Amino acid sequence: MKFVLAPDSFKESMSAAEAAEALERGIRSVFPTAQCVRVPMADGGEGTVEALVSACAGEFVVTEVQDACGRPVQAAYGYVAAEQLAIIEVAAAAGIHLVASADRDVRSASTFGVGQLITDALDRGASRFVVGLGGSVTNDGGAGMLHALGARLLDSDERDLGNGGAELSRLSRIDLEGFDPRARSASFEIASDVANPLLGPDGASTVFGPQKGADPQAVLDLEEALTVFARVLAADSGRSVADLPGAGAAGGLGAAFLACFDSRMRRGVEVVMEAALLEQRLSGADFVFTGEGSIDGQTLHGKTPLGVAEAAARHGVPVVAFAGRVGPGAEVLYDQGFAALVPIVQEVSDLQRALTDGPANLERTAATVCRILALGQSAGVARGAQTGWATGA
Amino acid sequence: MKFVLAPDSFKESMSAAEAAEALERGIRSVFPTAQCVRVPMADGGEGTVEALVSACAGEFVVTEVQDACGRPVQAAYGYVAAEQLAIIEVAAAAGIHLVASADRDVRSASTFGVGQLITDALDRGASRFVVGLGGSVTNDGGAGMLHALGARLLDSDERDLGNGGAELSRLSRIDLEGFDPRARSASFEIASDVANPLLGPDGASTVFGPQKGADPQAVLDLEEALTVFARVLAADSGRSVADLPGAGAAGGLGAAFLACFDSRMRRGVEVVMEAALLEQRLSGADFVFTGEGSIDGQTLHGKTPLGVAEAAARHGVPVVAFAGRVGPGAEVLYDQGFAALVPIVQEVSDLQRALTDGPANLERTAATVCRILALGQSAGVARGAQTGWATGA
Repeated sequence: MKFVLAPDSFKESMSAAEAAEALERGIRSVFPTAQCVRVPMADGGEGTVEALVSACAGEFVVTEVQDACGRPVQAAYGYVAAEQLAIIEVAAAAGIHLVASADRDVRSASTFGVGQLITDALDRGASRFVVGLGGSVTNDGGAGMLHALGARLLDSDERDLGNGGAELSRLSRIDLEGFDPRARSASFEIASDVANPLLGPDGASTVFGPQKGADPQAVLDLEEALTVFARVLAADSGRSVADLPGAGAAGGLGAAFLACFDSRMRRGVEVVMEAALLEQRLSGADFVFTGEGSIDGQTLHGKTPLGVAEAAARHGVPVVAFAGRVGPGAEVLYDQGFAALVPIVQEVSDLQRALTDGPANLERTAATVCRILALGQSAGVARGAQTGWATGA
Repeated sequence: MKFVLAPDSFKESMSAAEAAEALERGIRSVFPTAQCVRVPMADGGEGTVEALVSACAGEFVVTEVQDACGRPVQAAYGYVAAEQLAIIEVAAAAGIHLVASADRDVRSASTFGVGQLITDALDRGASRFVVGLGGSVTNDGGAGMLHALGARLLDSDERDLGNGGAELSRLSRIDLEGFDPRARSASFEIASDVANPLLGPDGASTVFGPQKGADPQAVLDLEEALTVFARVLAADSGRSVADLPGAGAAGGLGAAFLACFDSRMRRGVEVVMEAALLEQRLSGADFVFTGEGSIDGQTLHGKTPLGVAEAAARHGVPVVAFAGRVGPGAEVLYDQGFAALVPIVQEVSDLQRALTDGPANLERTAATVCRILALGQSAGVARGAQTGWATGA
């Protein structure tokens, strides 16, 4: 019997890798000889590096780069040498969690550190990248990243611009001659659950600027600056990307990836599933166990378990999803390929206790599900079942 | 497919009958054509009448009797006309919940009302009784009950004693001539999870007196009075019962039943299972679903689900137990015939919310278990399972 264990992290309780381990312990307590394939998942946001390092048997690399304010920061990314694959979370360098509220200046915040991370991975031999765009504090259209990789952003006097999105109002030309050719030839899978364009009422500055500290004037200034940037970027890269879905992700960093890299932008979970070779690992599986901290009607909107369920459905493998919380409306997921949704809490408890007990509860619940699976083996149990999975033999 | 639904009540959340209904709703949402046999359970304590009225398709009878203080109280018992079966909870008449702390006087508290309930049932045609002993506020050795049924408790001057246990210190003779012959010829199944003898350090007065309001002097006085009672009861009934297990149950009411009635005292759940014809109903069942508010290592000690599991094991039917709480140590139950223990809470919640949501959570969890059962139908799933139930086909 083969189980594929593809949970997301249970936020504040356990990482995806820890969740997969808890599931395996639970399964083995009931089916000691079962094959358990751990494929920790993520949605392109926090935890993506950790999940893929675990799923792909990669390593963590820590290197010093600049944070969004230009200060040194130790940033980690993942590297899978056998596949020349680097996994980068933009937030590791340009993350909002690295800059205290008082220090945030979205006008000057830069993605320079992201470019440094890419350079470090290229030096290591990377030819493929997975990049998670979530959690940035920048609004520079990816100008800093391009600069770090050797591009020059010049004003009308051919002088280099300073850091940050606001400077882009003076942009006259992007000189890509020095742009790292390794970066140009590498392939980038960009994980983004954000489909916003670069400009306009749904654009990066207007929608995401305020949560990065932009006041109304800063939003207007940044919108104007990114408008200049979009025009120049299209002219000098030869690609007009400002209107593409996701160009506005991560303060316009999406636009830079789309214009200057061999890149493909997709739902985070799809990027992660592909990098983790989930579909290949589903081959011959009897069951997929997935899960995350909370599952409810919102899980329909691109969350990890749904992506896993869709992949599993393509292989005809039933999915059981575990969650710290199975919230109202979760039943709609039964139409989306989930065979069962199982909460892991064992009794009345407060949030802190539930988070602390998460791994133990998940292990216990996985064991219970296995016991019931075994029970279902009794002849004829599936007669007349309405689960969508019951009729298979 | 046949499910037998034999839950206890989930205290403060739903009655056993309501729990069985919730289980059935959950099952039917997955297996619309399944046969569901609802056999609500109880352990002889609170909820026994309600469970057996439901399980046996009986009726509730309400009649006015005396409470332990001699005040009128509307007391309910169950009656199953087709089987001439009455179900009585002693607490309905002599219950501690009927008497405010300030009004409690364990010296004079009387089981007279219990005898009135029996008389009412005899008048209705009862020839079989199930009696639950839990929750009394009395310590009168059942003297009040005997008196209500026509016995006379006389002092050395052949005068009737007053109410309550303390009076028994003056007992000289029990005149059973007027004792209701119908009560004598009826059969009584006494449900008691208490094995204490009537007297001594483990006796009724010493162990249970204090929780009924007896101060140390009252305990001594009642112990002395019940010692007299035991001697006289043995002499005049011809049966020496004081040392029998359960003689000390319900303030010595157990002793009166054992001495003066055709009675059999057993674990509450066994009495209830027999009255509810649980074993007959298990015939041909594929699964038993049971449950109660809390399941943990203590469930080993005579609680309802364990009794149900033992009965089911005799018929080779696997048992899934549902609980509001699956507490530490519950795993030991997997050696006692439980196939799976399933908590019903869906997320972090406080007790009040968990109690309120109990029926919905139970329904949802039963559905989830059925979904997993159906899933287990997948070929070969039980290969190598270590549940004790997995190998059956």
